[in-house]
Amino acid sequence: MKNVIVGQSGGPTAVINSSLLGVFKTAKTMGAKTVYGMRHGILGLLKKDLVDLGTVIRSELDMDLLKRTPSSFLGSCRYKLPDPSSDEKTYKDIFGYLTELGIDAFFYIGGNDSMDTIAKLSDYGARIGSGIRFVGVPKTIDNDLAVTDHTPGFGSAAKYVATTVKEIIRDGLVYDYPVVSVIEIMGRNAGWLTAAAALAKGEDCEGVDAVYLPEHVFDERKFLERTSELLNGRSAVIAVSEGVKTADGRYVCEAGRSVDYVDAFGHRQLDGTARHLAALVANKFKIKTRAIELSSLQRCAAHISSRVDMTEAFNVGAAAVKAAAGGMSGIMIALDRVSDDPYICVTHPCDVKSVANIEKKVPLEWITDDGTGVSDEIVHYIYPLVQAEIAPLWVEGLPHHILPLKR
Amino acid sequence: MKNVIVGQSGGPTAVINSSLLGVFKTAKTMGAKTVYGMRHGILGLLKKDLVDLGTVIRSELDMDLLKRTPSSFLGSCRYKLPDPSSDEKTYKDIFGYLTELGIDAFFYIGGNDSMDTIAKLSDYGARIGSGIRFVGVPKTIDNDLAVTDHTPGFGSAAKYVATTVKEIIRDGLVYDYPVVSVIEIMGRNAGWLTAAAALAKGEDCEGVDAVYLPEHVFDERKFLERTSELLNGRSAVIAVSEGVKTADGRYVCEAGRSVDYVDAFGHRQLDGTARHLAALVANKFKIKTRAIELSSLQRCAAHISSRVDMTEAFNVGAAAVKAAAGGMSGIMIALDRVSDDPYICVTHPCDVKSVANIEKKVPLEWITDDGTGVSDEIVHYIYPLVQAEIAPLWVEGLPHHILPLKR
Repeated sequence: MKNVIVGQSGGPTAVINSSLLGVFKTAKTMGAKTVYGMRHGILGLLKKDLVDLGTVIRSELDMDLLKRTPSSFLGSCRYKLPDPSSDEKTYKDIFGYLTELGIDAFFYIGGNDSMDTIAKLSDYGARIGSGIRFVGVPKTIDNDLAVTDHTPGFGSAAKYVATTVKEIIRDGLVYDYPVVSVIEIMGRNAGWLTAAAALAKGEDCEGVDAVYLPEHVFDERKFLERTSELLNGRSAVIAVSEGVKTADGRYVCEAGRSVDYVDAFGHRQLDGTARHLAALVANKFKIKTRAIELSSLQRCAAHISSRVDMTEAFNVGAAAVKAAAGGMSGIMIALDRVSDDPYICVTHPCDVKSVANIEKKVPLEWITDDGTGVSDEIVHYIYPLVQAEIAPLWVEGLPHHILPLKR
Repeated sequence: MKNVIVGQSGGPTAVINSSLLGVFKTAKTMGAKTVYGMRHGILGLLKKDLVDLGTVIRSELDMDLLKRTPSSFLGSCRYKLPDPSSDEKTYKDIFGYLTELGIDAFFYIGGNDSMDTIAKLSDYGARIGSGIRFVGVPKTIDNDLAVTDHTPGFGSAAKYVATTVKEIIRDGLVYDYPVVSVIEIMGRNAGWLTAAAALAKGEDCEGVDAVYLPEHVFDERKFLERTSELLNGRSAVIAVSEGVKTADGRYVCEAGRSVDYVDAFGHRQLDGTARHLAALVANKFKIKTRAIELSSLQRCAAHISSRVDMTEAFNVGAAAVKAAAGGMSGIMIALDRVSDDPYICVTHPCDVKSVANIEKKVPLEWITDDGTGVSDEIVHYIYPLVQAEIAPLWVEGLPHHILPLKR
């Protein structure tokens, strides 16, 4: 290997930098001279805003800090490459620059949008006879990538969700009057992460009382009926996906919005679901309610990462480099669960087009018929992914992170 | 010692059960036959709803689980004893029942309301010549108790706040466009916990850009001016107390309320401050904003407790038993910081009346003149309280807790 380049795209996860380390360390071991990092994904490449990763990851300590550091170390973007038929100049620029840098292999750590970037670049490269290999490295807390058994980043987010939900359930036992807690969990269209709330149940915890995923139509009347059944002089904890929608296709959170958060990019913020439902319950049953949004901590609470997840995140990065070194391109490294118990999982390359732009949702047979719970199958599926811990490097009482890149 | 009784009152903390263990273990060591626990505080005593703690804390493992379990193990209440002059029957009932149970000493783990209970009971006991000792054990995440240097429960909440704020700051660096994150932190009238956000700053973290405490009048115009200074093509993270008020005495959150959450007890829920301010910023500057409420996890995220805090919580419980055994009554065990560096802190008894019903606020000289930050003094004050860790007992990938009491 000569030089390689790597970027991170889309929303971060608690272990996305473990994949970056997997790429960096393996490429160095395999003889890469320079490992370039794109600042803010492909945008950094277009702007020639790169960093020589060897100058910022300088020691074993740096490596151990990097893999424990949340957020995308290189920065991220949400940018979709244009189609080469409509804008070939962008591709010419990219390939010209990559050639100038002496790049052998290009790695992109991201979700299904990022795999579209890998697909387009490898297709274009094949067309012009470029020898550069393009390999995708999966990540997302949403676990919505196709082909792969699960996605790095999901396990740590699931561990955070299950742990905090368990703590909130215990907290709810404190008073001698009923309290309904509604916990809002990320997942616009796929309910994987919300389903992780079901893992809180165990010999020391009663578990959540209801779970609502976006795959099932949400009905406010049935929600209130179910809540009334739950309330029997006792408290209840309800987990709900931010993305639940009513039969007319409207997000539940849109009903509970005082100020409309439409950001500069026209994206609506999908919060307010828990708040709206908690207000409904409070008004209907005249009891105390709490709305809890787990918010961006789901993707950045690196202090409670899953070691299984962190290891797999590293492994997909490392496998991507090995696949590229073996001449593969236009692929993504997927995870293949060989065995459930004992849990054994291996990496394998798959055609990136079988992943790009596709959302994998929770199968309806893993949701109870009334839409208020999940089956044991999904608990068994998630369970191995939240196992084992990796302690932060505690400095001055707080988890220490690698120094951020200079702006 | 014959028998003793203990209760927990007010909002829980991550280490309130460490104080319970301090009482239980020390009383047992000192020869107490039965250690009774009141279910849901003094209400449990009035209803004769007690538990023999020896039947539920049966092993060393139980003890280690108990101190790592969030929420009040015995349950809690928010009940203020009537004045004996208006309702002597309640007191006669309590003392009659305590005598029947052969109680030597009564311990109450709580905040300034709970210390009022200790004051009233010890006064009444002295009047009727009862030999029962009444001792208060401090706890609160708000750190608003008088006399004591700080309050057990605060250090763990501060560690949670500083850690998660640090993770959120890192998360905010991910995109190449500015994002303003507004983080709402508990503290109705006292800003101690919000000030803990300032601890995120270090060599690996730029820290929060502004901190707003309830001790300083909040001015929306100045807030927007300050935010506009911060935004310089870069992201900003702002920590704000849920209890900030404008000059006319209104809570800022009341402005941002779509549905009014007044619970069955007439308490308004103080959330919505971050949401309101984030909407203000989004509308004014047309940029992406995020509102993050740290919510009840501040008091129940036992997975990231401070070991200093947990040890001190145990110590105040243990010291309470020793003080009672030495014949003291009508006192609370306070913490006395003997030295800042190295940090050395001892327990000492104080008159419970010097604590009851008083709120200790952040001194104004620890807040910057413009009200947008805190001084180094408060960071130095909080710093030792968040030091050192105590790992959860991880079982099946999640922190394990002691079995909850049966309803």
